Amino acid sequence: MPHQPDPMNHHEQSALQFERIVFFSDAVFAIAITLLVIEIKVPVFSGEQESLFGAENTYEIYTEGPTKLLHLLPKIVGFIVSFLIVGRFWMNHHRNFGVIRRYDTGLLWRNILLLMCVAFIPFTTALFSEYVVWDKAAVFYCGSLMLVGVVQWEMWQYATRKHRLIDASVSRHFIDKISLISLAVPTAFGLGMIAALAGQTWLLGFTWIIIPFILRAAHRRHDRRVTEEEKTLAETN
Amino acid sequence: MPHQPDPMNHHEQSALQFERIVFFSDAVFAIAITLLVIEIKVPVFSGEQESLFGAENTYEIYTEGPTKLLHLLPKIVGFIVSFLIVGRFWMNHHRNFGVIRRYDTGLLWRNILLLMCVAFIPFTTALFSEYVVWDKAAVFYCGSLMLVGVVQWEMWQYATRKHRLIDASVSRHFIDKISLISLAVPTAFGLGMIAALAGQTWLLGFTWIIIPFILRAAHRRHDRRVTEEEKTLAETN
Amino acid sequence: MPHQPDPMNHHEQSALQFERIVFFSDAVFAIAITLLVIEIKVPVFSGEQESLFGAENTYEIYTEGPTKLLHLLPKIVGFIVSFLIVGRFWMNHHRNFGVIRRYDTGLLWRNILLLMCVAFIPFTTALFSEYVVWDKAAVFYCGSLMLVGVVQWEMWQYATRKHRLIDASVSRHFIDKISLISLAVPTAFGLGMIAALAGQTWLLGFTWIIIPFILRAAHRRHDRRVTEEEKTLAETN
Amino acid sequence: MPHQPDPMNHHEQSALQFERIVFFSDAVFAIAITLLVIEIKVPVFSGEQESLFGAENTYEIYTEGPTKLLHLLPKIVGFIVSFLIVGRFWMNHHRNFGVIRRYDTGLLWRNILLLMCVAFIPFTTALFSEYVVWDKAAVFYCGSLMLVGVVQWEMWQYATRKHRLIDASVSRHFIDKISLISLAVPTAFGLGMIAALAGQTWLLGFTWIIIPFILRAAHRRHDRRVTEEEKTLAETN
Repeated sequence: MPHQPDPMNHHEQSALQFERIVFFSDAVFAIAITLLVIEIKVPVFSGEQESLFGAENTYEIYTEGPTKLLHLLPKIVGFIVSFLIVGRFWMNHHRNFGVIRRYDTGLLWRNILLLMCVAFIPFTTALFSEYVVWDKAAVFYCGSLMLVGVVQWEMWQYATRKHRLIDASVSRHFIDKISLISLAVPTAFGLGMIAALAGQTWLLGFTWIIIPFILRAAHRRHDRRVTEEEKTLAETN
Repeated sequence: MPHQPDPMNHHEQSALQFERIVFFSDAVFAIAITLLVIEIKVPVFSGEQESLFGAENTYEIYTEGPTKLLHLLPKIVGFIVSFLIVGRFWMNHHRNFGVIRRYDTGLLWRNILLLMCVAFIPFTTALFSEYVVWDKAAVFYCGSLMLVGVVQWEMWQYATRKHRLIDASVSRHFIDKISLISLAVPTAFGLGMIAALAGQTWLLGFTWIIIPFILRAAHRRHDRRVTEEEKTLAETN
Repeated sequence: MPHQPDPMNHHEQSALQFERIVFFSDAVFAIAITLLVIEIKVPVFSGEQESLFGAENTYEIYTEGPTKLLHLLPKIVGFIVSFLIVGRFWMNHHRNFGVIRRYDTGLLWRNILLLMCVAFIPFTTALFSEYVVWDKAAVFYCGSLMLVGVVQWEMWQYATRKHRLIDASVSRHFIDKISLISLAVPTAFGLGMIAALAGQTWLLGFTWIIIPFILRAAHRRHDRRVTEEEKTLAETN
Repeated sequence: MPHQPDPMNHHEQSALQFERIVFFSDAVFAIAITLLVIEIKVPVFSGEQESLFGAENTYEIYTEGPTKLLHLLPKIVGFIVSFLIVGRFWMNHHRNFGVIRRYDTGLLWRNILLLMCVAFIPFTTALFSEYVVWDKAAVFYCGSLMLVGVVQWEMWQYATRKHRLIDASVSRHFIDKISLISLAVPTAFGLGMIAALAGQTWLLGFTWIIIPFILRAAHRRHDRRVTEEEKTLAETN
């Protein structure tokens, strides 16, 4: 949809207008993250009959119960993993919008796109935790999480390019550090997607190991560059 | 419900009271937009049996799986289209309330009506993406989206008529531009609804083409009027 | 749970603390109101088979479709009625908290109780719109809506008694007017509940007629009292 | 995930950044608390046939109806109990963040963890209220509620240790009082979990009795310590 109106040219951006963007995003994150639990269904027992306290099929509950609970395990693990990752994405969103000071139509559409990818995660989590052995479900799951990370990374590039929407005081080194950090989670899930495409779903248990390495690299590079800059400054004086 | 109390006559409108309206609206938008994903159901396989990792029906997963995923396609397309359109409606709401400064009972009821239409979209999306060949589902879908646009347009007329709820400084040209822009999406879906009523559902793939034309017309008209006004001003001086 | 801590004795109530109460309430209202749509289920057709565009059961869709859509009617009517009533309750909450300036533990618990009753409405709406002929479902539905109104009325009494949580400047007449207005909706549904208990569910179509009368009475009484007071003031001077 | 970036070192924490944390938490609490109602399903009748007003199976509704409604009782009780407890947890969160003034990455992760446990409660409530006689469901239910309480308690310890994230003016006595109060609900559900593990689910009806005792003890201890301190102060002067 080209040629959209840019309200910014006409009216000053109020604090409330900016707050609405982050609160709307928070609401979508919060709903997507809480909907994850909906996919963990209460088990149904064979020969189940309705009764006030479910007492009539006590026998089935006690014989089949432990197995049924065990079958919930992949669902619960999927819930925990997706909750923590979406929580991490929210923390990234929170940190990035702590630096962003203005908005434009480009940022709004990118944010809508990010939220769309986030809202899709309950589905891919349900698909993968229902069919853990299915490599295509793993591809979908890793792909959706990678997508959120990539969109978030691109949004950061958009907002910070030539300090478009951030304070002029934010240093290039900080921007680059956040860019590199933002790539940690999507890199891990991108590798996971490749592994799943190659039919090696078991590798998913290990691809996340790359995350701390990327984070550490981002911090070291940042510290080194800051130190170098200070040295250069000291030499020129 | 006539003869409602008008709290505005008794107590000053606080900033918090105004914020509540937009945050309540944001929450309803956010929930409706995220609920869209609930209709994309995880496929069920024939001969499915419960097991810890779903391994027992591996055979069915591999034979039926690709077809099942293909069948999800209309659902996923429906999710994406509705998400972007509701996202667009939210951006309109965000832009309009950036200009609106006060509220009255009339605006509150119009807002509740708008939110009701928004909350209805997950249902019409589910209906249409479940039965893509059904022309009546297409009528419902286009109708519900058109309705949101029309209510939003009427709300803008209500708020801006004689600058009822907006700053006196907002120009007539800006108000008219937004009015015209607000009609772009409902016009497209109104045409879609007519096409579906005539049994030509395939036209739905093309009615959205009108949107950029209306947006461009709105901008050109606005620019022309502003230029003319400036010219007149220059001549009179 | 007696003997609860009263944080107000220890730390000043910040604006953020007060805002959280209304925004938390807004979120629960927004979710309950949007969940109403979940109960409108997409119809299922006999002999339905999965296919990319649902084309295989086109015959059933065209023969059974119109009837199925007609069967959705009570659900859609229930959605609209409940949405407007819950929207009205939200507007009451919004108006009341525009006057309330402080909070205490008593108000917090009353608010939680109110939200619990609001969160229950999607269930009673679903029950009644599923079984419109069932008088017991009508009793539940009317009862749940009456309950929200009564709890809201009691909360207003609690907040305004001896100006406990409101500004001293708020007049007794205004407090009484709001009290009477708050009783309009619960009175209508209380009468509806009595009618349903007596097996006369059809009366539900008429009990809402009492609402405008109560609202008008509240306004007239308020105006009369204000006029009388002004007269007395003029005479004493 | 070690070596995370600490945005606090680079940019000042704005009020909006802090507000986002509490509003995001409010949204998750609000969704989890409202999702509780989703598990109360509308009863289905034998021989049910679709019709405009459900009139065709009037006979079954009148014969089976009362029993079906009675069977909803454990679900409704579960809804009320869980709603009140989650409401209580929200009030604790509200009170604690009324004292917390800053945030760091440790607090953010603890908050995500707390919200994850809160989001899990609709599932354990559904499980337990579906199978009231099943001791393992009771273990899960009590365990999940205990977990929320324990995480909230640990979060309070983290925030207040050496006044890490709170004002220096907050007294040690107040911190200790809140710590003890925070343990009331998890202690009750911890005892309930032990009872359920021992197969004595009926004891769940009594373990909550310990809550007022712990609350009273917390208040008495606080008052005694404050009095002692004042005495010591008076003696030294």
